[in-house]
Amino acid sequence: MKKSFLVLSLLMAVILFGCNQNAKQLEPENTIIKDPLPSWNEGPAKKSIIDFVNAVTTKTSPDFILPADRIATFDNDGTLWAEQPYYFQLQFAMDRVKELAPEHPEWKKNPVLQAVINDEIDKLLSFGEKGLLELIMTTHAGITTEEFSQIVKNWIATARHPKTGKLYREMVYQPMIEVLEYLRANDFKTYIVSGGGIDFMRPWTQEVYGIPAEQVVGSSVKVAFEMRDGKVVLVKLPEINFIDDKEGKPIGIHQFIGKQPVAAFGNSDGDLQMLQYTASNSKKSLVLFVHHTDSIREWAYDRKSHIGKLDKGLDVATAKGWTLVDMKNDWKNIYSLNLLN
Amino acid sequence: MKKSFLVLSLLMAVILFGCNQNAKQLEPENTIIKDPLPSWNEGPAKKSIIDFVNAVTTKTSPDFILPADRIATFDNDGTLWAEQPYYFQLQFAMDRVKELAPEHPEWKKNPVLQAVINDEIDKLLSFGEKGLLELIMTTHAGITTEEFSQIVKNWIATARHPKTGKLYREMVYQPMIEVLEYLRANDFKTYIVSGGGIDFMRPWTQEVYGIPAEQVVGSSVKVAFEMRDGKVVLVKLPEINFIDDKEGKPIGIHQFIGKQPVAAFGNSDGDLQMLQYTASNSKKSLVLFVHHTDSIREWAYDRKSHIGKLDKGLDVATAKGWTLVDMKNDWKNIYSLNLLN
Repeated sequence: MKKSFLVLSLLMAVILFGCNQNAKQLEPENTIIKDPLPSWNEGPAKKSIIDFVNAVTTKTSPDFILPADRIATFDNDGTLWAEQPYYFQLQFAMDRVKELAPEHPEWKKNPVLQAVINDEIDKLLSFGEKGLLELIMTTHAGITTEEFSQIVKNWIATARHPKTGKLYREMVYQPMIEVLEYLRANDFKTYIVSGGGIDFMRPWTQEVYGIPAEQVVGSSVKVAFEMRDGKVVLVKLPEINFIDDKEGKPIGIHQFIGKQPVAAFGNSDGDLQMLQYTASNSKKSLVLFVHHTDSIREWAYDRKSHIGKLDKGLDVATAKGWTLVDMKNDWKNIYSLNLLN
Repeated sequence: MKKSFLVLSLLMAVILFGCNQNAKQLEPENTIIKDPLPSWNEGPAKKSIIDFVNAVTTKTSPDFILPADRIATFDNDGTLWAEQPYYFQLQFAMDRVKELAPEHPEWKKNPVLQAVINDEIDKLLSFGEKGLLELIMTTHAGITTEEFSQIVKNWIATARHPKTGKLYREMVYQPMIEVLEYLRANDFKTYIVSGGGIDFMRPWTQEVYGIPAEQVVGSSVKVAFEMRDGKVVLVKLPEINFIDDKEGKPIGIHQFIGKQPVAAFGNSDGDLQMLQYTASNSKKSLVLFVHHTDSIREWAYDRKSHIGKLDKGLDVATAKGWTLVDMKNDWKNIYSLNLLN
């Protein structure tokens, strides 16, 4: 695993919230009467999702899968919400540095943190993985898990994307929200399996995606047990515990879930191993890449992007006949329809 | 964390199976008409469980807890099933050594493995933590997670306890099975949080306890991602990944579940930190130790036991007024009533 990927993937993941609607499951009768994926244009991608669900949930089907084995895993950044021009969690870390800077005059001597304070993103990135790691450790450690959770909640409720002006939590993909709801209505258990920070995602995934904290797998720092005033707190340490990217995704799935998924959704080479693991299941599986092809409504990028690079994954998907979602043509809507503004 | 605890706790956990009945949830009407805990004698322990459930599930109660926050965690060895004269997982490891010995003539030169082959338990234990670690690594690594799962399934279906003659999977505590069912019937999510091996428990917890693999937290070795014949396999490595004991229990709960429990059940000092973490929840909580007091029907042990030592925990529980289950007087039955023989 390349170190730069480790660090970059640790920077993945952010928030979205916004739409309580998202968390609601479709009523069974709705799945029969209504189109379960109204934001999807008719085409091979939509058809492959619906055909898969029908095949594995119909009791008389040779591909029937018991509900207990209906495990579906979703990457977050670039799959459930946007990730350009850089992972939203990086913006969170930068915002946090600026917020804390007045209390830390010593940061003025630190070139990495100084670049953040001065909004010099290119300079920040020029420090490479070491700089990004320092940024994460400065902003994600030294406080309790409960304090961190509250900081994330406050940020996600208010922070806005520099280009779209939307709240980050509004930049979730409506078509994917529909897939989550459709799968849950068919007794799938939906999980996030992201390179982003697990403690960064958990405070808002229930509200935004209908995915409870215990169904979120992500990267993490170590924590220490402490008693304070007779109560147990867990303190986040400036030390990597687990990187949930590439080979780490199947490993994280095994560790956290203990079952091999039958459906997996990603958008980058960082998700390839998770999709391969899912395709290796002896049961019927659905394996899908979201391909970012819409430069107008979102961003168009793949083989050469520094964020969410989809290169080898594109080759494997084509060779194996996996589902490729052409965002521009397959999706009627991009972002959540439950926008707050 | 003391090293000896690390190793001992890695040796915890085994199997039980047997009773599909266990997995069934009580129908709501049963919980109203019938005693939800028929194997419990009336007394303060039983009362504290029922009072807690009523207090947190009654909508008009000041202690009402939303279903999403009803997280209950259970230690396994000594809490859900027996653990004497030594953790059942140790017997599994020893049985595995004997099974594999014919293919490994070189083991004859290894004093640890030779002690196992010769049934010299005391000699094995005399090698201390280093010996036990070697035993675990010899038997729990070098194969794929799927192969290991199958080996565990075969063992749990057939292996018998040296003293009782029962299948290990029959040595689950009926009163605790009733607590699991009672909590689930009241919308609690029940988890195992054990020092035992996660891959050792997951193959049978659904059948025995009604707890799915994804709700089992335990100790683990590292695994490696490999492609074999075009399919992904995960290979268990002879290297500790996580020890889910003592301080490790709250840390494991945070990592795997991401929510602070409101109910926790243990039987030893290895569970104390999990119980303290649960008691630290700002919500109403139920915190309970099973005290092994029945030398006739089971085993009587606490402060001085080398397995499942309950010493500091007993002091803290008494000082804090936590629930203490007196196994001899509180439980009408000990083992599963769904015995196969």
